[in-house]
Amino acid sequence: MAAIAVLGFGTVGSGVVDVIETHRELFAQRVGAPVYVKTVVDVRDFPDSPYAGKIVHDFAAVEDDPEIVTVVEAIGGRRIARDFTRRALAAGKNVVTSNKELVAYHGTELFALAREHGVRYLFEASVGGGIPIIRPMAQCLAANEITEVTGILNGTTNYILTRMINASLSFDEALKEAQALGYAEADPSADVLGHDACRKICILASLAFGAQISPDDVRIEGIDRVAAEDIALADTLGCRIKLLGRAQKLDDGTLYISVAPFLIPDGAPLARIDGVFNGITVRGDSVDEVLFCGRGAGKYPTASAVVADVLDTLRPGNAERRIEWGPALPGRLADCRQVSHRYLVRVHGDVKVALEAAEKLFGYIDVVPCDGVSIFDGAFTTPAPIPEGLLLARVEKMRAAGVTVANHLMFL
Amino acid sequence: MAAIAVLGFGTVGSGVVDVIETHRELFAQRVGAPVYVKTVVDVRDFPDSPYAGKIVHDFAAVEDDPEIVTVVEAIGGRRIARDFTRRALAAGKNVVTSNKELVAYHGTELFALAREHGVRYLFEASVGGGIPIIRPMAQCLAANEITEVTGILNGTTNYILTRMINASLSFDEALKEAQALGYAEADPSADVLGHDACRKICILASLAFGAQISPDDVRIEGIDRVAAEDIALADTLGCRIKLLGRAQKLDDGTLYISVAPFLIPDGAPLARIDGVFNGITVRGDSVDEVLFCGRGAGKYPTASAVVADVLDTLRPGNAERRIEWGPALPGRLADCRQVSHRYLVRVHGDVKVALEAAEKLFGYIDVVPCDGVSIFDGAFTTPAPIPEGLLLARVEKMRAAGVTVANHLMFL
Repeated sequence: MAAIAVLGFGTVGSGVVDVIETHRELFAQRVGAPVYVKTVVDVRDFPDSPYAGKIVHDFAAVEDDPEIVTVVEAIGGRRIARDFTRRALAAGKNVVTSNKELVAYHGTELFALAREHGVRYLFEASVGGGIPIIRPMAQCLAANEITEVTGILNGTTNYILTRMINASLSFDEALKEAQALGYAEADPSADVLGHDACRKICILASLAFGAQISPDDVRIEGIDRVAAEDIALADTLGCRIKLLGRAQKLDDGTLYISVAPFLIPDGAPLARIDGVFNGITVRGDSVDEVLFCGRGAGKYPTASAVVADVLDTLRPGNAERRIEWGPALPGRLADCRQVSHRYLVRVHGDVKVALEAAEKLFGYIDVVPCDGVSIFDGAFTTPAPIPEGLLLARVEKMRAAGVTVANHLMFL
Repeated sequence: MAAIAVLGFGTVGSGVVDVIETHRELFAQRVGAPVYVKTVVDVRDFPDSPYAGKIVHDFAAVEDDPEIVTVVEAIGGRRIARDFTRRALAAGKNVVTSNKELVAYHGTELFALAREHGVRYLFEASVGGGIPIIRPMAQCLAANEITEVTGILNGTTNYILTRMINASLSFDEALKEAQALGYAEADPSADVLGHDACRKICILASLAFGAQISPDDVRIEGIDRVAAEDIALADTLGCRIKLLGRAQKLDDGTLYISVAPFLIPDGAPLARIDGVFNGITVRGDSVDEVLFCGRGAGKYPTASAVVADVLDTLRPGNAERRIEWGPALPGRLADCRQVSHRYLVRVHGDVKVALEAAEKLFGYIDVVPCDGVSIFDGAFTTPAPIPEGLLLARVEKMRAAGVTVANHLMFL
């Protein structure tokens, strides 16, 4: 008998309990012993739940229960979740989590603690919901030096952008719709400003490059500045705008990690991953590029990944199978301002004057036709990649000269 | 020191040696001990190869070498490969393979032998080249009851169909081009007739449903009957034709395994996986659907998957981590003739007479406009799914009445 505890009975936690309890027979067969949820820890009561009898309020009931082999942490955040995770690991229990924030910020510490106590800390569900990505990267692509990971990692923003593209909604309309459908939270800032995608790309980057990369060190840009005009311009350029998390090993060996809305050519693998779906491409020196996609969030897809990890902790030969990374290496991250991209720049107001000012500064620009946008909008692209620092300096100069620069976007 | 032997120094075998020898430092770090190729077995000599000194002609040199921990079988086929695999397992060595034919036909036997000798038989590279699929299905989706696996599993036929669709080539022209580019063999029958895709879907089906499914029991249809006219009709219907391997658990619990060219709606995830790329969707009761895609063949992508398995055999806690299935269960496969699909039927000759005959037999048909095909071609679709047996009987009746039925294709 393998007894499991679940911390937090919200969407993910209750999904995990459902999946374990409705697949008892299948799982008993797969791991060689019956698996069941013994205890659920939550501050709330759930008198109407079929699992009401399993609910306790005190984490000590899990910590002190020698029968519990594996603990699922579905609390979220970095405070209580971290405390309970440390205590569970110290008590000799495996911990499985969907908490990207905790893994992204404190992965190294928790891996070390797990190792010290001969147990595991697993986090397949922290990125891409139900999409298998952590284990495939750590194991199936182990023969590769990974050079790039790029992904649509946040379903909320992908839904908003997809609706702006396909239904010509404004950002605000698309956000309201996403909230009404339960795809966006009342306070959508962690999604819209790119923080959620940032935590996820940090986990993938840490795994790909073997050292902790903190979300605090990443260049983040959300989708809050993306306007209907940008969507229309992207279309003119044969591109779609997607919020991407990117982790690249540059030629000089430094790592460039970024989160931003990118212009993606329509034929690229990620261009048509729409709605709440996530997609992740991984490039390695032997495998070339592989793409994983599916539902990046949601109760059961996320529970699918959590429970796969739970089953893995119950298999023999478990303790030595580590998926982890080492401590941060100083000086390893590239200076964003030195990294070059091609850009689309949108100006507003007196378009003729603005484009003349741009041409003077940039030397040569490709003007983008703005039919169907508005007569007050103009746009151009840089014909060659230029460093972000230089782009920003020139944008500043244009602004100083009285030009309204409405937005600038990077090409993938 | 972990010594590896490679059997067969062809495309895959030499790729494996390259990948191991050029990543020595990385792999030593990943598995905790240096990894190197000690011996390569081939009937040929390779005097110009940098690895000429490793080549031996007698398998006994591997079998009797206590230093060799893991053997890579890259011979192919079912005769010598099976013999050497059995001997290597019996000698207490792990075996890693890219040989889909051997795994599809003799997986159960070889898993049992591996188990008996406390070693592993791994086969990630047997399906989808470098795309991680075997381990993600066995581990990351372990929380799911898998209900369907559908894939573009053969790069050669996908290249041919893509060129027929995108460049309006005939089947013969596209095949010749694929041969000139090295994507198709001089004798392309195993690819074109669907046998290669069949072995791969059998491996995925055996894994998904836990019991050996033999390629001999599968309904196979190749792409040799797909004509330019079918491609044009598919386009009219908003579809693309792809050779798919499908494994489905039907409502009555039986398994339906098939290989055939299917009409896929243009918006479906597999519709735009083109050229030599492979794509596989897996549907599970918790995760909904996930898609994996990438290069399904080629020297280094395949070597990437083989070497990932090699590294896995060198990790601690190895012997107990089994990825396998049980023996065949009789009576588990569905009767193909009872399974229903919607069909596109193309007739040739006197179109008016042919369609009248069809309408009489089918009761109601949707005639497909054939502008741009030829005045001697007509086509219709069945408005509702009908059992394949019934479709075939009606096609026979049409033929008996003198109608030329040129082709019939299933809708996904």
